[in-house]
Amino acid sequence: MKILVINGNMTQAITDGCVNAAREVAAPGTQVIGATGTFGPQVIGSRAEHALAQHGMLELGAKHGADCDAIVVAVSMDTGLPALREVLSIPVLGMTEAGALTACTLGAKFALVTFGRRHIPTYGELIDGYGLGSRCVGVEAIDAGPNAALADPAAAVRSLIELGRKAIDERGAEVILLAGAVAAAWQRDVQQGLPVPVVEGIRCATLMAETLVRLAFPKPKVGSYSSPGVRTVSGVDPAIARLFGPGD
Amino acid sequence: MKILVINGNMTQAITDGCVNAAREVAAPGTQVIGATGTFGPQVIGSRAEHALAQHGMLELGAKHGADCDAIVVAVSMDTGLPALREVLSIPVLGMTEAGALTACTLGAKFALVTFGRRHIPTYGELIDGYGLGSRCVGVEAIDAGPNAALADPAAAVRSLIELGRKAIDERGAEVILLAGAVAAAWQRDVQQGLPVPVVEGIRCATLMAETLVRLAFPKPKVGSYSSPGVRTVSGVDPAIARLFGPGD
Amino acid sequence: MKILVINGNMTQAITDGCVNAAREVAAPGTQVIGATGTFGPQVIGSRAEHALAQHGMLELGAKHGADCDAIVVAVSMDTGLPALREVLSIPVLGMTEAGALTACTLGAKFALVTFGRRHIPTYGELIDGYGLGSRCVGVEAIDAGPNAALADPAAAVRSLIELGRKAIDERGAEVILLAGAVAAAWQRDVQQGLPVPVVEGIRCATLMAETLVRLAFPKPKVGSYSSPGVRTVSGVDPAIARLFGPGD
Amino acid sequence: MKILVINGNMTQAITDGCVNAAREVAAPGTQVIGATGTFGPQVIGSRAEHALAQHGMLELGAKHGADCDAIVVAVSMDTGLPALREVLSIPVLGMTEAGALTACTLGAKFALVTFGRRHIPTYGELIDGYGLGSRCVGVEAIDAGPNAALADPAAAVRSLIELGRKAIDERGAEVILLAGAVAAAWQRDVQQGLPVPVVEGIRCATLMAETLVRLAFPKPKVGSYSSPGVRTVSGVDPAIARLFGPGD
Amino acid sequence: MKILVINGNMTQAITDGCVNAAREVAAPGTQVIGATGTFGPQVIGSRAEHALAQHGMLELGAKHGADCDAIVVAVSMDTGLPALREVLSIPVLGMTEAGALTACTLGAKFALVTFGRRHIPTYGELIDGYGLGSRCVGVEAIDAGPNAALADPAAAVRSLIELGRKAIDERGAEVILLAGAVAAAWQRDVQQGLPVPVVEGIRCATLMAETLVRLAFPKPKVGSYSSPGVRTVSGVDPAIARLFGPGD
Amino acid sequence: MKILVINGNMTQAITDGCVNAAREVAAPGTQVIGATGTFGPQVIGSRAEHALAQHGMLELGAKHGADCDAIVVAVSMDTGLPALREVLSIPVLGMTEAGALTACTLGAKFALVTFGRRHIPTYGELIDGYGLGSRCVGVEAIDAGPNAALADPAAAVRSLIELGRKAIDERGAEVILLAGAVAAAWQRDVQQGLPVPVVEGIRCATLMAETLVRLAFPKPKVGSYSSPGVRTVSGVDPAIARLFGPGD
Repeated sequence: MKILVINGNMTQAITDGCVNAAREVAAPGTQVIGATGTFGPQVIGSRAEHALAQHGMLELGAKHGADCDAIVVAVSMDTGLPALREVLSIPVLGMTEAGALTACTLGAKFALVTFGRRHIPTYGELIDGYGLGSRCVGVEAIDAGPNAALADPAAAVRSLIELGRKAIDERGAEVILLAGAVAAAWQRDVQQGLPVPVVEGIRCATLMAETLVRLAFPKPKVGSYSSPGVRTVSGVDPAIARLFGPGD
Repeated sequence: MKILVINGNMTQAITDGCVNAAREVAAPGTQVIGATGTFGPQVIGSRAEHALAQHGMLELGAKHGADCDAIVVAVSMDTGLPALREVLSIPVLGMTEAGALTACTLGAKFALVTFGRRHIPTYGELIDGYGLGSRCVGVEAIDAGPNAALADPAAAVRSLIELGRKAIDERGAEVILLAGAVAAAWQRDVQQGLPVPVVEGIRCATLMAETLVRLAFPKPKVGSYSSPGVRTVSGVDPAIARLFGPGD
Repeated sequence: MKILVINGNMTQAITDGCVNAAREVAAPGTQVIGATGTFGPQVIGSRAEHALAQHGMLELGAKHGADCDAIVVAVSMDTGLPALREVLSIPVLGMTEAGALTACTLGAKFALVTFGRRHIPTYGELIDGYGLGSRCVGVEAIDAGPNAALADPAAAVRSLIELGRKAIDERGAEVILLAGAVAAAWQRDVQQGLPVPVVEGIRCATLMAETLVRLAFPKPKVGSYSSPGVRTVSGVDPAIARLFGPGD
Repeated sequence: MKILVINGNMTQAITDGCVNAAREVAAPGTQVIGATGTFGPQVIGSRAEHALAQHGMLELGAKHGADCDAIVVAVSMDTGLPALREVLSIPVLGMTEAGALTACTLGAKFALVTFGRRHIPTYGELIDGYGLGSRCVGVEAIDAGPNAALADPAAAVRSLIELGRKAIDERGAEVILLAGAVAAAWQRDVQQGLPVPVVEGIRCATLMAETLVRLAFPKPKVGSYSSPGVRTVSGVDPAIARLFGPGD
Repeated sequence: MKILVINGNMTQAITDGCVNAAREVAAPGTQVIGATGTFGPQVIGSRAEHALAQHGMLELGAKHGADCDAIVVAVSMDTGLPALREVLSIPVLGMTEAGALTACTLGAKFALVTFGRRHIPTYGELIDGYGLGSRCVGVEAIDAGPNAALADPAAAVRSLIELGRKAIDERGAEVILLAGAVAAAWQRDVQQGLPVPVVEGIRCATLMAETLVRLAFPKPKVGSYSSPGVRTVSGVDPAIARLFGPGD
Repeated sequence: MKILVINGNMTQAITDGCVNAAREVAAPGTQVIGATGTFGPQVIGSRAEHALAQHGMLELGAKHGADCDAIVVAVSMDTGLPALREVLSIPVLGMTEAGALTACTLGAKFALVTFGRRHIPTYGELIDGYGLGSRCVGVEAIDAGPNAALADPAAAVRSLIELGRKAIDERGAEVILLAGAVAAAWQRDVQQGLPVPVVEGIRCATLMAETLVRLAFPKPKVGSYSSPGVRTVSGVDPAIARLFGPGD
């Protein structure tokens, strides 16, 4: 099995971290490869960069997904997930989607802990969009955004642990969902400091991808995730245009 | 006052129809101009095209919004709305958002009526994302997508009226929200055939845009709609890159 | 265009403040007139006074609305709004309804800030009744009721700013909805002290009223906001009784 | 124990029917008396009449409640309930509130069945306002309003049974809540025709009133149902004004 | 009338306390008897003990309910309630269900106050399961579980009062629902210390049981609370097996 | 890895079917064993049997789980799931929980299709309890219960396909969740007849169990799924009593 991990921003180090996390848990026979954005944001840290990166994510999926069995979206806003799931015939999993669904099997309520306070409402919207709002007791964010966190990982881990404890004590969180692709490498460190399961999305998405490949569901023929069929799309990478072609 | 109507697909006729609808209701002193996408989908008719067009919408807003007082998003999925609202300092209104909010002042419950059954869930997600799910009794869609509807407008109008009646009779809709940029020109015809108000988004968004300009709220300095500040964004139109620059 | 601002309590000063706020934003050609309650509560400050004032609001609308194009309900509980909207053929807007809908176009979440802690649940019920509960992160109220606030406006403004900051910092509010007809005059002062948009309902309702007049929707012929038809109503002002008459 | 049944419309026959229903189930030692509105609507059949009748309900409670132990609101929109509950120190129960709460103890989901299709959304709003929306699978209404139903009770009963069956078969209702004060007399007949419990509000409210009297909870000293204290209210029946007086 | 109070744990003292609370409010002609679990948990204090005790509750209902008119479930998790309500033909009330429904008639929002922080989510799930989540502002729990509370009742009462005040001040609770069968005896003491009604479930369930007996609803013939009919059940007390027999 | 599949009813054939379904998808190195209830219902087909079987499920988990790595609950009501998850230190997955979570990754909305109309509300309660109500467009059930379905599998499959189509066409389902342990063997046949993915819970739960084992989350030390600690439990199988013992 071959899983493609796509990162819509242009920071190779984040892709590498996510690919490593995926490989850490993938089954023996599973090959994990990564692909990094070639235009757009260096790091996705705003609604506008998330919007922009949807184009990039489609391009990555179109160019590199051809011979893969499944795709993992390695952006914690699950950028491009619905689009890729619609237009491709292989399973596509979002890291935060997969993390949130997994959290539901581990405790009554989870809290999402991440980087940068301005993202609190956007993560809330993401979780609500998955229909999981009632399982999530809230989003907590350390002041530092992803870049600052990468500059001092030890401090970031300490802050994440502190916020996790706060979510446990004050909001009744029974699971912590660690969001932010940069944090994929820190799951174990944060887990050390907290008395409840700490869920990290890349690992969950990788194993959910394996699961969906093994379950081999057919591509839906009707509905909003069926193939859109032949559509005219211009001025984009030919690989994208082919997604809207007549198919095989 | 100058209002920019942006259409993220590449069909000039749809832009023109929306600009006309906006001009029909705009205040005497308001100038309305339009801008059409230069790459991406011919018509936005899938999740993937919606994703792709977010790039295009940002580009249109960045290139043409500079000397405007407000922007109307003339794509019925409100493509790019959160991104534009975040990154610009002028009011940005989505046509379906504005239509739904207006519908709330006209009756207890509204139904959204549109083109193409595959969009039923995506419109539902859009309305739910605005927190208005409890005001909306459902989404009805004629089988024909926007292109087919444009090919035989009289038939499309008849079908829209029929669906509107069904929503009134079976779901208790007290307002019909007509969604789909192609339908901007047909509001009056559909209204003729129905016993409740028929709301069309471009007109609502245009007047809400005027309203927000007159109320002159300051740009938020904190939160998920404050300016994202200086960010590195590459390989895109310089106008987009400037949105993430140091500002004035 | 002529807009009637009706205040169901008996305090002329509040009506005047609301009329002034409306005139401040109304379009050049719009005439704004006010009407004040002639019986019932001096200030509406309880569920029972709100109940009582519904009679008064109907009377004001019936007596003064005849030659107007729209009505603004200048009571922050939107007292009488559904009744007036049902029984009249012109647009009727509630100040808190209009403020809340406007707030939805300015940020992810709003908080309502008002006077008197006992009103916290009733404002919550009002917002929930509009189906906007998921957009509102909470209601904050200064201890002082409207009368005490009027006695020391500077202190009231300081307290409102302080509560607004609390709602921004602790609840993630991205917009502040200032509720309470007495506060219509203080919007600018409160806005000065806060880093997010401060929405005041009278101004929003006035411009939404203009919008609805320009959009010229027909009166619904079916549903809970269609005219109730001929009904027997006794012992009330003849103007009210005429509302339930055979119509024109 | 003495229970006051108040009917805010001016139709004595409806009051009598409700008093009879209350007496049918009241405990041996319980005295039930009725009071009928002296101004306002003949029958409450619109949002506007419901608004108007709130004044009348307050007056009835103020004038007749003095030596009673509890009040039952005998209007199926529970007109005036929050106001009376706030301003009085004795228990006040609404017939539809009590019926809906009782229905929750009898089955998984209930449907509300009533008179006049225009009331479907207003009953929905009432149930949602009680926070019981997820227990209610819908509102069904026969075409005939209360007056028409009274003119041909046998036909009305047949129609109510038919709608009840429809709610059971199509919506999965496990309990039918019969709403409409005129139907208080028909509970038994409708029950005969249906395979699930048929709940009628007056009877439930009467026994809940007895229950609250026996449980003897103190009047809340804080919150939105505590006494509003001394307030200036003019131009209304002195009994109402006394409700806002200094108390005992 | 004869009401059976069943306690699924093996602590006779708790049964006695609940029976006493029931007798305190029951009507003169009502006989109250109790039954205590004969196997399973000493005190139900975990999800697993709650699961186990469902067997015990069914056995108690089956063995002792035969000649009773109604059953009160005297476990604050309402253990076994849906099962007993389905399989028996007499009314069955849960203490927390009854308390929560009663709380809805006394204030805008209630808070549940109980013993042992680990139960906070399970009570939340119970209230949400009743569809009453929007009426409940939260669950507060003293650190001590039921056993510790019983060991020092005065301290427990002080803690419950303190938590009640916190729920009133910080969450806007207008009613306190005291949960936990051991607290049945302390309702009056906690009420003394709080400015809003303190609701205790056994008393509410007892009077609701009387109410349902007097209203004499028929057993549903369809739906999820109709009798399951003849089913094969083995290895359990014959009284349980008879519940699944051919009936009378 | 060793996964235990427990079936709380006494029908060995159902256990066998579930074990086969699990083995069909389990990873090469995974051993799957089954265990069947030794007392209680022959088939779980009512709320009361579900209640009773919770005891049985605890016993099966306690007696057979000792040397296993994870448990799959092979009862479609997920009987005993919260209890087992709390009291054991290994992952426990419910078949309907796992199926519903998986369905969320395959389409916008799913419908649950099952056996026996009386279970419609109980499945609804189960899905709502998982917080997934907004993702589920409804529950459809063929008239036949599990036993009748087993008697004529071909007819059952045809009926399930028909209901699935109805859910797709009328409710907009994009995924069908096939519920009912007896249906584990029919997933492929039903899938053949439907144009959207057909999800079956045992297979999903088996792979989710493998996933959780590989992710190796620690047992929570706090919250409602932490170990309840030492508790006194009597009159039950010693294996159950040991679950409440001092641990290792």
